[in-house]
Amino acid sequence: MPVFHAHIPKGRFSREHKIAIGHALNRSLVVALGIPAGDRFIVISEHGDDELFIDPTFMEMERSANAMIIEVQLGAHRPASEKAALMAEICRQLGEAASIAPDDVFIAVIPVPTENFSFGRGVAQLAGIAPRW
Amino acid sequence: MPVFHAHIPKGRFSREHKIAIGHALNRSLVVALGIPAGDRFIVISEHGDDELFIDPTFMEMERSANAMIIEVQLGAHRPASEKAALMAEICRQLGEAASIAPDDVFIAVIPVPTENFSFGRGVAQLAGIAPRW
Amino acid sequence: MPVFHAHIPKGRFSREHKIAIGHALNRSLVVALGIPAGDRFIVISEHGDDELFIDPTFMEMERSANAMIIEVQLGAHRPASEKAALMAEICRQLGEAASIAPDDVFIAVIPVPTENFSFGRGVAQLAGIAPRW
Repeated sequence: MPVFHAHIPKGRFSREHKIAIGHALNRSLVVALGIPAGDRFIVISEHGDDELFIDPTFMEMERSANAMIIEVQLGAHRPASEKAALMAEICRQLGEAASIAPDDVFIAVIPVPTENFSFGRGVAQLAGIAPRW
Repeated sequence: MPVFHAHIPKGRFSREHKIAIGHALNRSLVVALGIPAGDRFIVISEHGDDELFIDPTFMEMERSANAMIIEVQLGAHRPASEKAALMAEICRQLGEAASIAPDDVFIAVIPVPTENFSFGRGVAQLAGIAPRW
Repeated sequence: MPVFHAHIPKGRFSREHKIAIGHALNRSLVVALGIPAGDRFIVISEHGDDELFIDPTFMEMERSANAMIIEVQLGAHRPASEKAALMAEICRQLGEAASIAPDDVFIAVIPVPTENFSFGRGVAQLAGIAPRW
């Protein structure tokens, strides 16, 4: 149910790398939060250098031309500790899967109540039950 | 004022189908929530098969190669019942307009206070009044 | 830390104009909210006319073929007055930088707690401190 949207620089990652990024993001949910591996809803967009502007050093990072922005819509019930665990795991998985440097990974977690998701058929499958995923 | 962002698989929908998807999303607001038809702010993005990863069966769906992710930024004041009505109507309208199967429609509703929107001229037209739309 | 995502019509803006849009959005944070100029995380996406549907007149605007949707993920602690100031400044900066008409600028501000951002290294740098930026 968490939905990822990764904004990556155009022409820096091969087809294989992009698939690896998708797998890494999915894997980060499993490892950090115990979310089922089947809960995989991931979008990647490429942007040219006139469409992606990421400061190279802000907050004392050393970002490269591979720097990317990862957005993830996560259950609004998640405490800060779980969000921090997910951020760390995203970074680790992207490093392992596609040799992406930790400084190149900007993350924004958008809080969304679980009743706001439909997995299909126009139904809010998680409404009215204790939050999970 | 609700803003849609539909992420669809590349090469699966013609120009006519994409326009029909846009109309269907707009129509779902009108039918489910009584929002004016003129309140139409819709974005579609296409993604190749190395950029869109949607599990084929999670939550007991049978998704096809047409599976898509629909994000909608909706007024944060909307109760669960209205969000559920919108989800059902999105699904129905997409089926009618472009023969999209109900199992292929994943929806995420992002709650946004109405004072957070500007329809133009740099003004928050809905700030300070009772929520609508 | 605010993240911008601008959805613009394809083929209407040159490379130079797109870079100017990026600078204008960054500048709006500095002028309206006193955010450091280095805090620059901006994405632009182009959409064909079968992928971007913006009503030409809703809410008494006169929108042109240049009409665009600007999303910005902003600290959830920001009061309405600061959101309004940012909207006005986005509009002004886009006009100065790329001759974009005020009626052509639709804005959605997505509220995100500052602890939900990572500037890199998988760490939530702003967690546990008073909100800034």
